[in-house]
Amino acid sequence: MKQVILVRTDLKMRKGKLAGQVAHASIGAARTVPDNQVQNWLDKYDQKKIILKVSSLQEMHDYESKCIEIGLNCVYEVVNTGDNQIPVNEVTCLGVGPADDEILNEIFKDLKLL
Amino acid sequence: MKQVILVRTDLKMRKGKLAGQVAHASIGAARTVPDNQVQNWLDKYDQKKIILKVSSLQEMHDYESKCIEIGLNCVYEVVNTGDNQIPVNEVTCLGVGPADDEILNEIFKDLKLL
Repeated sequence: MKQVILVRTDLKMRKGKLAGQVAHASIGAARTVPDNQVQNWLDKYDQKKIILKVSSLQEMHDYESKCIEIGLNCVYEVVNTGDNQIPVNEVTCLGVGPADDEILNEIFKDLKLL
Repeated sequence: MKQVILVRTDLKMRKGKLAGQVAHASIGAARTVPDNQVQNWLDKYDQKKIILKVSSLQEMHDYESKCIEIGLNCVYEVVNTGDNQIPVNEVTCLGVGPADDEILNEIFKDLKLL
Protein backbone atom coordinates (compact mmCIF):
# COMPACT_ATOMS: atom_id res chain seq x y z
CA MET A 1 0.00 0.00 0.00
CA LYS A 2 1.03 3.54 -0.62
CA GLN A 3 -0.25 6.99 -1.25
CA VAL A 4 0.44 8.97 -4.42
CA ILE A 5 0.46 12.76 -4.44
CA LEU A 6 0.53 14.72 -7.69
CA VAL A 7 1.97 18.23 -7.59
CA ARG A 8 1.53 20.88 -10.27
CA THR A 9 4.96 22.17 -11.24
CA ASP A 10 3.52 24.94 -13.43
CA LEU A 11 2.50 26.89 -10.30
CA LYS A 12 6.14 27.15 -9.22
CA MET A 13 5.27 27.05 -5.53
CA ARG A 14 8.02 27.89 -3.06
CA LYS A 15 9.34 24.96 -1.04
CA GLY A 16 7.38 25.55 2.18
CA LYS A 17 4.14 26.28 0.36
CA LEU A 18 4.52 23.14 -1.73
CA ALA A 19 5.25 20.98 1.32
CA GLY A 20 2.15 22.32 3.07
CA GLN A 21 -0.06 21.61 0.06
CA VAL A 22 1.31 18.06 -0.21
CA ALA A 23 0.57 17.52 3.47
CA HIS A 24 -2.99 18.81 2.93
CA ALA A 25 -3.37 16.29 0.08
CA SER A 26 -2.01 13.47 2.20
CA ILE A 27 -4.38 14.11 5.10
CA GLY A 28 -7.32 14.77 2.79
CA ALA A 29 -6.86 11.59 0.75
CA ALA A 30 -6.27 9.46 3.86
CA ARG A 31 -9.62 10.71 5.22
CA THR A 32 -11.38 9.21 2.19
CA VAL A 33 -10.16 5.71 3.11
CA PRO A 34 -11.64 3.52 5.88
CA ASP A 35 -9.72 3.95 9.13
CA ASN A 36 -8.59 0.31 9.34
CA GLN A 37 -6.89 0.66 5.95
CA VAL A 38 -5.21 3.87 7.04
CA GLN A 39 -4.04 2.15 10.21
CA ASN A 40 -2.67 -0.72 8.13
CA TRP A 41 -0.80 1.74 5.91
CA LEU A 42 0.66 3.46 8.97
CA ASP A 43 1.62 0.28 10.80
CA LYS A 44 2.83 -1.98 8.03
CA TYR A 45 3.86 0.37 5.24
CA ASP A 46 5.33 3.20 7.28
CA GLN A 47 2.81 5.56 5.60
CA LYS A 48 4.65 5.21 2.29
CA LYS A 49 4.13 8.15 -0.07
CA ILE A 50 5.30 8.93 -3.57
CA ILE A 51 5.33 12.55 -4.73
CA LEU A 52 4.99 12.89 -8.51
CA LYS A 53 4.88 15.88 -10.80
CA VAL A 54 2.34 16.99 -13.36
CA SER A 55 2.81 20.04 -15.53
CA SER A 56 -0.75 21.39 -15.64
CA LEU A 57 -4.21 21.27 -14.10
CA GLN A 58 -5.42 19.42 -17.19
CA GLU A 59 -2.84 16.66 -16.68
CA MET A 60 -3.81 16.38 -13.01
CA HIS A 61 -7.49 16.11 -13.91
CA ASP A 62 -6.74 13.46 -16.54
CA TYR A 63 -5.12 11.32 -13.86
CA GLU A 64 -7.96 11.98 -11.45
CA SER A 65 -10.42 10.81 -14.11
CA LYS A 66 -8.38 7.66 -14.72
CA CYS A 67 -8.55 6.85 -11.00
CA ILE A 68 -12.29 7.36 -10.82
CA GLU A 69 -12.89 5.34 -14.02
CA ILE A 70 -11.38 2.26 -12.42
CA GLY A 71 -13.28 2.82 -9.18
CA LEU A 72 -10.41 4.33 -7.21
CA ASN A 73 -12.45 7.02 -5.49
CA CYS A 74 -9.98 7.77 -2.70
CA VAL A 75 -8.86 11.03 -4.32
CA TYR A 76 -8.61 14.48 -2.79
CA GLU A 77 -7.91 17.78 -4.54
CA VAL A 78 -6.20 20.56 -2.62
CA VAL A 79 -7.49 24.04 -3.40
CA ASN A 80 -5.31 27.00 -2.46
CA THR A 81 -6.94 29.31 0.04
CA GLY A 82 -4.68 31.28 2.30
CA ASP A 83 -1.71 32.34 0.24
CA ASN A 84 -1.25 35.08 -2.28
CA GLN A 85 1.80 33.56 -3.93
CA ILE A 86 -0.58 31.72 -6.25
CA PRO A 87 -4.22 32.49 -7.16
CA VAL A 88 -6.92 31.68 -4.60
CA ASN A 89 -9.05 28.66 -5.56
CA GLU A 90 -6.27 27.24 -7.71
CA VAL A 91 -5.97 23.45 -7.42
CA THR A 92 -2.39 22.69 -6.36
CA CYS A 93 -2.17 18.95 -5.60
CA LEU A 94 -4.06 15.69 -5.82
CA GLY A 95 -3.78 12.99 -3.17
CA VAL A 96 -4.69 9.36 -4.01
CA GLY A 97 -4.98 6.62 -1.44
CA PRO A 98 -3.49 4.86 0.50
CA ALA A 99 -4.34 2.15 -2.02
CA ASP A 100 -2.84 -0.93 -3.59
CA ASP A 101 0.72 -0.46 -4.90
CA GLU A 102 0.26 -2.30 -8.16
CA ILE A 103 -2.88 -0.42 -9.17
CA LEU A 104 -1.20 2.91 -8.44
CA ASN A 105 1.98 1.88 -10.28
CA GLU A 106 -0.05 1.06 -13.36
CA ILE A 107 -1.97 4.35 -13.36
CA PHE A 108 0.97 6.63 -12.65
CA LYS A 109 3.78 4.78 -14.41
CA ASP A 110 4.51 7.64 -16.82
CA LEU A 111 4.98 10.33 -14.18
CA LYS A 112 8.30 11.36 -12.68
CA LEU A 113 9.24 11.92 -9.04
CA LEU A 114 9.20 15.52 -7.85
CA MET B 1 -6.15 25.72 15.69
CA LYS B 2 -3.29 24.85 13.49
CA GLN B 3 -0.45 22.42 13.01
CA VAL B 4 3.21 23.40 13.05
CA ILE B 5 5.83 21.41 11.19
CA LEU B 6 9.54 22.01 11.71
CA VAL B 7 11.89 21.06 8.90
CA ARG B 8 15.66 20.67 9.19
CA THR B 9 17.30 22.81 6.52
CA ASP B 10 20.78 21.43 7.26
CA LEU B 11 19.83 18.14 5.55
CA LYS B 12 19.27 19.98 2.26
CA MET B 13 16.50 17.61 1.17
CA ARG B 14 15.32 17.84 -2.41
CA LYS B 15 11.84 19.30 -2.91
CA GLY B 16 9.88 16.05 -3.31
CA LYS B 17 11.67 14.33 -0.45
CA LEU B 18 11.04 17.29 1.82
CA ALA B 19 7.35 17.45 0.89
CA GLY B 20 6.95 13.73 1.65
CA GLN B 21 8.63 14.09 5.04
CA VAL B 22 6.41 17.07 5.92
CA ALA B 23 3.35 15.02 4.98
CA HIS B 24 4.59 12.16 7.20
CA ALA B 25 4.92 14.65 10.06
CA SER B 26 1.46 16.05 9.45
CA ILE B 27 -0.24 12.65 9.48
CA GLY B 28 1.85 11.42 12.41
CA ALA B 29 1.16 14.44 14.59
CA ALA B 30 -2.55 14.45 13.73
CA ARG B 31 -2.74 10.82 14.90
CA THR B 32 -1.58 11.90 18.39
CA VAL B 33 -4.63 14.16 18.77
CA PRO B 34 -8.18 12.95 19.59
CA ASP B 35 -10.23 12.44 16.44
CA ASN B 36 -12.85 15.05 17.29
CA GLN B 37 -10.14 17.70 17.52
CA VAL B 38 -8.70 16.59 14.19
CA GLN B 39 -12.17 16.76 12.67
CA ASN B 40 -12.62 20.27 14.09
CA TRP B 41 -9.28 21.33 12.58
CA LEU B 42 -10.32 19.89 9.21
CA ASP B 43 -13.81 21.35 9.22
CA LYS B 44 -13.32 24.77 10.76
CA TYR B 45 -9.67 25.59 10.18
CA ASP B 46 -9.19 24.07 6.75
CA GLN B 47 -6.39 21.90 8.23
CA LYS B 48 -4.19 24.99 8.64
CA LYS B 49 -0.47 24.23 8.69
CA ILE B 50 2.63 26.34 9.13
CA ILE B 51 5.96 25.00 7.88
CA LEU B 52 8.94 26.45 9.76
CA LYS B 53 12.66 25.91 9.46
CA VAL B 54 15.25 24.84 12.00
CA SER B 55 18.92 24.60 11.19
CA SER B 56 19.88 21.47 13.17
CA LEU B 57 18.64 18.40 15.00
CA GLN B 58 19.58 20.10 18.27
CA GLU B 59 17.38 23.08 17.52
CA MET B 60 14.50 20.76 16.61
CA HIS B 61 14.91 18.82 19.84
CA ASP B 62 15.03 22.05 21.87
CA TYR B 63 11.62 22.99 20.46
CA GLU B 64 10.27 19.50 21.04
CA SER B 65 11.38 19.74 24.69
CA LYS B 66 9.69 23.14 25.03
CA CYS B 67 6.42 21.61 23.79
CA ILE B 68 6.60 18.68 26.16
CA GLU B 69 7.53 20.92 29.12
CA ILE B 70 4.28 22.82 28.78
CA GLY B 71 2.28 19.63 28.33
CA LEU B 72 1.92 19.80 24.56
CA ASN B 73 2.49 16.13 23.89
CA CYS B 74 1.01 16.03 20.39
CA VAL B 75 4.44 15.87 18.76
CA TYR B 76 5.69 13.45 16.14
CA GLU B 77 9.25 13.02 14.84
CA VAL B 78 9.78 11.76 11.30
CA VAL B 79 12.72 9.39 10.91
CA ASN B 80 14.09 8.84 7.42
CA THR B 81 13.83 5.26 6.28
CA GLY B 82 13.61 4.63 2.58
CA ASP B 83 15.86 7.13 0.88
CA ASN B 84 19.58 7.23 0.42
CA GLN B 85 19.76 10.95 -0.26
CA ILE B 86 20.16 11.43 3.49
CA PRO B 87 21.29 8.98 6.19
CA VAL B 88 18.83 6.29 7.31
CA ASN B 89 17.43 6.92 10.79
CA GLU B 90 18.07 10.65 10.51
CA VAL B 91 15.26 12.74 12.00
CA THR B 92 14.01 15.08 9.28
CA CYS B 93 10.88 16.86 10.59
CA LEU B 94 8.78 17.41 13.68
CA GLY B 95 5.00 17.75 13.54
CA VAL B 96 3.12 19.46 16.38
CA GLY B 97 -0.65 19.47 16.74
CA PRO B 98 -3.24 20.46 15.60
CA ALA B 99 -3.28 22.57 18.73
CA ASP B 100 -4.22 26.04 19.93
CA ASP B 101 -2.91 28.87 17.73
CA GLU B 102 -1.79 31.15 20.53
CA ILE B 103 0.19 28.49 22.36
CA LEU B 104 1.94 27.49 19.15
CA ASN B 105 2.63 31.14 18.22
CA GLU B 106 4.29 31.71 21.58
CA ILE B 107 6.52 28.63 21.35
CA PHE B 108 7.60 29.06 17.75
CA LYS B 109 7.65 32.87 17.47
CA ASP B 110 11.39 33.03 16.68
CA LEU B 111 11.31 30.62 13.75
CA LYS B 112 10.96 31.60 10.10
CA LEU B 113 8.70 30.14 7.41
CA LEU B 114 10.31 27.60 5.10
